[in-house]
Amino acid sequence: MSKAIPEPVTRLIEAFSRLPGVGPKTASRLTYFLLRAPDQLTNELADALRELKANTRFCSVCHNITVEDPCGICADPERDHRVICVVEEPLDVLAIERTGSYGGVYHVLHGAISPVNGIGPDNLKIRELVARVEAGDVDEVIVATNPGLEGDATAMYIQRQLASRDVKLTRLARGLPVGSDIEYADSVTLMRALQGRSAL
Amino acid sequence: MSKAIPEPVTRLIEAFSRLPGVGPKTASRLTYFLLRAPDQLTNELADALRELKANTRFCSVCHNITVEDPCGICADPERDHRVICVVEEPLDVLAIERTGSYGGVYHVLHGAISPVNGIGPDNLKIRELVARVEAGDVDEVIVATNPGLEGDATAMYIQRQLASRDVKLTRLARGLPVGSDIEYADSVTLMRALQGRSAL
Repeated sequence: MSKAIPEPVTRLIEAFSRLPGVGPKTASRLTYFLLRAPDQLTNELADALRELKANTRFCSVCHNITVEDPCGICADPERDHRVICVVEEPLDVLAIERTGSYGGVYHVLHGAISPVNGIGPDNLKIRELVARVEAGDVDEVIVATNPGLEGDATAMYIQRQLASRDVKLTRLARGLPVGSDIEYADSVTLMRALQGRSAL
Repeated sequence: MSKAIPEPVTRLIEAFSRLPGVGPKTASRLTYFLLRAPDQLTNELADALRELKANTRFCSVCHNITVEDPCGICADPERDHRVICVVEEPLDVLAIERTGSYGGVYHVLHGAISPVNGIGPDNLKIRELVARVEAGDVDEVIVATNPGLEGDATAMYIQRQLASRDVKLTRLARGLPVGSDIEYADSVTLMRALQGRSAL
């Protein structure tokens, strides 16, 4: 076996395998693809990896990933800094920005409360959120954690932390996804859609 | 949008997206995973990528990937150099080595004949295989291309090229995979299994 796989190949397969969702088979496939692809492709990937950590940091205000601190959104005077949308991950910021219908700022928790995975409130940027609300002129906190057990637990914890503060707390609506089919909706989603029904 | 994604992040997402089977969503997930993972992980991946191309080459005999030329298998005096197993990809060498039941050497074609993808015999290491057979003391060529249209076409082409040479040509057996169920076997496989039936 060892004779058949050169060490640099094994090393890259192992490095790829450590990525989430990449098993040993996918890692081998990627490695052997790169072996025959132009050098430029491999070098660009290596450079991009090096620069990722060297040139990015977390925004000291919203904890999103950024090159400059504070980030473009927090530094933008045209955005409504009195509305904070709380999300679990930086990717959630992208998803909400893509709607083009949100003009406020963000707060990235970097996860959700998950006792199973040993993640408690202190592992998240919840204290920083409370400090932001206490310090500033905040009218509304939109809790946009994921609609699941962990996201709900996190939302409830944030609600308790901010209950005594004079700030409006909201949560994203639950219901049927646009373009979906009632026939195939799970019953919890359908129940939420019924509870949240609005006038035609 | 552009304000929400720092340039180093976009760059890595794009570099990941160029890998086979990695779409923009997976590329984002990998990138944001690395942003929060320890720096060591990112650096190891970057180093492994750099060294992959710098420290590997193709064996001048069998065209497998190797650090030294000729490769460990071709340089091994204990292997039977009169039997050559012809495979499409370096990964196929690994799969056959893993069986522990093959003691000959290999020849890696680096693909299969595929007119749809513009891959003809000249894009593969077929000429090099013919030269090896002509030059050396070769008793048997085992054609171990994949059991599909392209692998079959490649096997037939090799057969025609080597027909006039005094060498035994064989092909891997087709039949039911071990542990499979006749009920669920496709009819072509079952037909092959019937045709290739052996005495009990």
